[in-house]
Amino acid sequence: MLYRKVSQDQGSSAGHYTWQISIRLQLLLLVIVASFCLHLGAAEEELKSTSLNLMPWPVKVEITNGQFRLTENFYLGGEVKPGHRVFKAGARFMSRLAGRTGLFFEQDYLVTQEISNRTKFFYHFDQPGRLVPGEDESYQLEIYPEKIELKAKTDVGLLRGFETLLQLLFSDEQGYFFPCLRIEDFPRFTWRGLLIDSSRHFMPVDVVKRNLLAMSAVKLNVLHWHLSDDQGFRVESKVFPRLHQLGSDGCYYSQEEIKEIIQLASELGIRIVPEFDLPGHSTSWFVAYPEYASAPGPYQIERKFGVSLPVFNPTLEKTYKFLDRFLKEMTALFPDPYFHLGGDEVDPRQWKENPEIQKFMKKNNIPDEPALQAYFNRRLLKILTKYQKKMVGWDEIYQPGLPQDVVIQSWRGQEALVDAVRKGYQCLLSNGYYIDLMGSAEKHYLNDPVPPDSPLTAEEKKLVLGGEATMWAELVSPETVDSRIWPRTGAIAERLWSPVEIRDVDEMYRRLKVINLRLEENGVNHLKNQPMMLRRLAQSEQIKSLEVLAAVSEPIKGYSRHSQGKPYSSLSPLTRFVDACYSESFEARDFKRLVENFLKSRDRRQAEEIKGYLQLWQANHQELMAIVACSPVLKEIIPLSENLASISDIGLEALRLILNSKKIDPARLQTRQKVLEEARKPVAECELAVLPGVELLFNSLKK
Amino acid sequence: MLYRKVSQDQGSSAGHYTWQISIRLQLLLLVIVASFCLHLGAAEEELKSTSLNLMPWPVKVEITNGQFRLTENFYLGGEVKPGHRVFKAGARFMSRLAGRTGLFFEQDYLVTQEISNRTKFFYHFDQPGRLVPGEDESYQLEIYPEKIELKAKTDVGLLRGFETLLQLLFSDEQGYFFPCLRIEDFPRFTWRGLLIDSSRHFMPVDVVKRNLLAMSAVKLNVLHWHLSDDQGFRVESKVFPRLHQLGSDGCYYSQEEIKEIIQLASELGIRIVPEFDLPGHSTSWFVAYPEYASAPGPYQIERKFGVSLPVFNPTLEKTYKFLDRFLKEMTALFPDPYFHLGGDEVDPRQWKENPEIQKFMKKNNIPDEPALQAYFNRRLLKILTKYQKKMVGWDEIYQPGLPQDVVIQSWRGQEALVDAVRKGYQCLLSNGYYIDLMGSAEKHYLNDPVPPDSPLTAEEKKLVLGGEATMWAELVSPETVDSRIWPRTGAIAERLWSPVEIRDVDEMYRRLKVINLRLEENGVNHLKNQPMMLRRLAQSEQIKSLEVLAAVSEPIKGYSRHSQGKPYSSLSPLTRFVDACYSESFEARDFKRLVENFLKSRDRRQAEEIKGYLQLWQANHQELMAIVACSPVLKEIIPLSENLASISDIGLEALRLILNSKKIDPARLQTRQKVLEEARKPVAECELAVLPGVELLFNSLKK
Repeated sequence: MLYRKVSQDQGSSAGHYTWQISIRLQLLLLVIVASFCLHLGAAEEELKSTSLNLMPWPVKVEITNGQFRLTENFYLGGEVKPGHRVFKAGARFMSRLAGRTGLFFEQDYLVTQEISNRTKFFYHFDQPGRLVPGEDESYQLEIYPEKIELKAKTDVGLLRGFETLLQLLFSDEQGYFFPCLRIEDFPRFTWRGLLIDSSRHFMPVDVVKRNLLAMSAVKLNVLHWHLSDDQGFRVESKVFPRLHQLGSDGCYYSQEEIKEIIQLASELGIRIVPEFDLPGHSTSWFVAYPEYASAPGPYQIERKFGVSLPVFNPTLEKTYKFLDRFLKEMTALFPDPYFHLGGDEVDPRQWKENPEIQKFMKKNNIPDEPALQAYFNRRLLKILTKYQKKMVGWDEIYQPGLPQDVVIQSWRGQEALVDAVRKGYQCLLSNGYYIDLMGSAEKHYLNDPVPPDSPLTAEEKKLVLGGEATMWAELVSPETVDSRIWPRTGAIAERLWSPVEIRDVDEMYRRLKVINLRLEENGVNHLKNQPMMLRRLAQSEQIKSLEVLAAVSEPIKGYSRHSQGKPYSSLSPLTRFVDACYSESFEARDFKRLVENFLKSRDRRQAEEIKGYLQLWQANHQELMAIVACSPVLKEIIPLSENLASISDIGLEALRLILNSKKIDPARLQTRQKVLEEARKPVAECELAVLPGVELLFNSLKK
Repeated sequence: MLYRKVSQDQGSSAGHYTWQISIRLQLLLLVIVASFCLHLGAAEEELKSTSLNLMPWPVKVEITNGQFRLTENFYLGGEVKPGHRVFKAGARFMSRLAGRTGLFFEQDYLVTQEISNRTKFFYHFDQPGRLVPGEDESYQLEIYPEKIELKAKTDVGLLRGFETLLQLLFSDEQGYFFPCLRIEDFPRFTWRGLLIDSSRHFMPVDVVKRNLLAMSAVKLNVLHWHLSDDQGFRVESKVFPRLHQLGSDGCYYSQEEIKEIIQLASELGIRIVPEFDLPGHSTSWFVAYPEYASAPGPYQIERKFGVSLPVFNPTLEKTYKFLDRFLKEMTALFPDPYFHLGGDEVDPRQWKENPEIQKFMKKNNIPDEPALQAYFNRRLLKILTKYQKKMVGWDEIYQPGLPQDVVIQSWRGQEALVDAVRKGYQCLLSNGYYIDLMGSAEKHYLNDPVPPDSPLTAEEKKLVLGGEATMWAELVSPETVDSRIWPRTGAIAERLWSPVEIRDVDEMYRRLKVINLRLEENGVNHLKNQPMMLRRLAQSEQIKSLEVLAAVSEPIKGYSRHSQGKPYSSLSPLTRFVDACYSESFEARDFKRLVENFLKSRDRRQAEEIKGYLQLWQANHQELMAIVACSPVLKEIIPLSENLASISDIGLEALRLILNSKKIDPARLQTRQKVLEEARKPVAECELAVLPGVELLFNSLKK
């Protein structure tokens, strides 16, 4: 529906404020839009699949003719009772539909979903689904003018189908409808996860819950919950209560809360795989139990970030007694068949420097520290096996002799994954999905656990279970974590669900922008928290100029934020301008695309649009200065804003020259070049994401 | 500090978008603002108390000379250990300070707050405070250039002082500081509460927690938690688990969650008074236990709102056995010495129609149904007394012979309170604090448990413990409840804390606007949820025109929303435009004040400002129509937007005539009058809050 597409595009080019359009144009716009609506409402224009905003894109979409019109007597029905996962999904479905449409549904959907002659939306599944890798998550969705049918092999498949249907709500002049179509769908990979690090910064229960809801909206099905690390031990242990009493600053999940979260996840068809990282990344354990560490205590909760020295002593029998009792408790608390024991980034120094440990190694023919870690893993694996869990670990757990039913999670590279698969291990890919490093959705989207040019054989490919986006939490707080997860993780969710040939980046962004808005419905604050954070910084509601700058800025990438000034600790504020910026600037991307198109076409209208952006950015600096003047915490962004104004000057000049087919004076070229280079430097841990677009414009002068 | 005041005023007149100011003016503005900053930074200009944004206003504020400059080596210290309520308050204090200022404090404030030679902020209290009415909450705050001292009789007083200090953070060109001053403060009333109704719509744990934090920021100290009603039974009962299993749709607080919330409240110095409303407002109990009702079942959870018929049968001994066991459990769960048993709005019909009940009444000389309710209360009071709780109830519990240690909460009127006090009862006022009815902050602010013209004697006045704002939840959800509580409840908080002579309404609004922003720091979403809700309605990010309309609209008042169209049920969506509007339009108030001032002064600059508003509103309709065209859920606001444009036309015309000292043609007067009257009618359950301001302008033409 082109009109829908039009309004979505308008929604994405946030730099274009509609008040700049004259009233005459607005009326014209209104007439055009209204006639589209009427036209489409009346003629039921053939819907193109490129107008659908589905993410992940289904395996098969067949658009048929017609629409299912939504009214207040929209009844859903199936054969399940209240309390059943599907019943609850049905209730949530109706609630979200009501929330979007303002319809006061007649059905008391919290009481009954029995099939009756009023039922319009029928759901059916054959058998209960188990929350294990390999479970059938397929579904078929058929929308007819008079009814909707959702079928699946398992109830988990039904949950996937509900989310697809919710992405298919359209509207026109007459009201709301679902387009008639037929979808067949099933996931490419069975393990599609998001890691949430609750240790570096504690993530309260409501943070986890809303992110579970958002995950289910894009069909992610594993929450990999990183529950312990140097900075905090986050789970209540009744067996060793001092772990959470001394290792958490009071910020931990009670067992009841964990059960509640597991319950919600189960209702959403999401598995929860807990991780207790061992033997490294474990300082917080030793605050209470220094006797299991490899160097004498006492220990404090670690506030700094990086790889820490404290590490479990794998040569003591009491270490295994301790971990056995602990894992006995935890394996009972977490029902998933898999249990992650970490194993990454073990600094061998404390092992090397402990003579008792060295003696043990000699005595037991353990040649080096990696082999000692392998010994430790073998002991832990025995324990996990005793408690009927399968082990997952990071790359480093691989050692010759590691049993083959251990799942290896690759963070160090694609090659590492290929290696492990070739040795017969089931693997997960996280390398390339490190969303904490502020990469683009494009970059994550094209990253593939089994890329098109993969050297693996068909049999080997089966060992690749899937992948996980990783939200490491050194630089996020409950206020900002949602904006670092969403919407980019939607692109990863598609990569892990949709067929391998679904790779069109522009198409992905088109749909990602819609999903970006839709996600808010689940409670995630990735969009709404920015104005709040800017208001706090400005101590004012007049934040427009800050929003304009933020829309084209991104946090600097990789680990560079840690080396810009004062080192971050877990107590450092995460409330500055950089923390308020979104992880990816859609505006910058759109601007660059616009410039690319303009340079090809020399279209005057595109030139006007480019000019509009540049003038907005150029003018923004003055307004921003007025706000920043008495906000010391915002002083740091003045050069960023100045840079934006300067590069906009350059962009406008370049645009003028291009339009008039003029050349640029070589001396001026040089000075402009210097300004652009200067603008590449990080300011306040931010970079100007629109710089590449301006450089494109400028560089075309050189030809 | 006038510069601060300037920027705050700019913050409040949200209708003025700074981009309308030319660059020249912006530079001028910048120079002016910067020189204020420099001037004040250099000269330490005398601070007027009218520049302080304290709410509630303290008893005594003495501004001295100088500033305490805030730097990264700002250490706080006192004599308490980690885990202590004050230690936690200190940690929260530092965290909020860091969040606002971006300062990376050196102190590891989660580990130690020991006094050392680095300490700059000293806190001290004499004795632990008990969370009971009448406890000492006084504090003294002294800020010197080189140190800050906060002292209080009890640790609860210290908490109050921490919040005051947080309201005293200022900034200038050089950075952040606290102005040197001396404050002595203590509350006027000891019981300063907010009722949260978790039954009509369930309020998840995070909603309650963030509102506790917001309450503490304005020194409210009682959460009156309405936990059961017709629409839902919200507490886990281990003694009668079917209560929550069948009466809650799965939405209830586990006992562990309740303990957690009580714990947080205690850390904030807030009491939690639970309410289980009996014998009416109790349908949800009878789903599981119809045998205690006065008419045969079966019963369903009530979805509709209003006064329901189901009521406990007070003539059966088993009813008291049941309630005894239940109250034994609940009185152990909730530590507060007070326990609220409701008692409001009992419909006597089921009692009248039950012959057994009528027989019982005859046999026991109970003359009428009110007397039967009194009998019920006497029986319950015995139970509560056995479990060492004091009873609180609504107006209707009063009957001759009601023991004098029952606290009566007045909702039906000031006279009812005076009556009860004169009979010797301790009382609370909620009449006039019904924030669900969408009254203005002014109205609530001037409402007083002991108004200046109170007929009570000095002794009698002592029986008035305080008051409570009531957030009845028929028309709020977790998405909107914060915007219906805040910021207006800040004005009520001041009424209940500050001396009776603090009554200047304009001054209150000046400070309320600042508090409005500051509250976000506690996690409440009263501001940030509006754009999110508008985005969902528009299915777009282009919501500017919706925000312009929302800024001058308010939900209609009283109970009128329930009679506008389809009746609301507890499953109805609360996501429409009216739900996205704030409870009070500051812009409308400012506009009206502007018009009043202009009509007195005929100042040209004010005329320009008025013109600016009116032109913005007039132009808004076109843009809004483009957004609304394909959003069926927004169709209902088209007449509202049209009305805004029409009355703006009228306002602009009136303004022109006034400026040119012209009269208005009588025929035109009539047609304009009609338009204005038409614009008074509710549209989509909203009213145009700026209409009175426009009418003021228009009516001046008649003179």
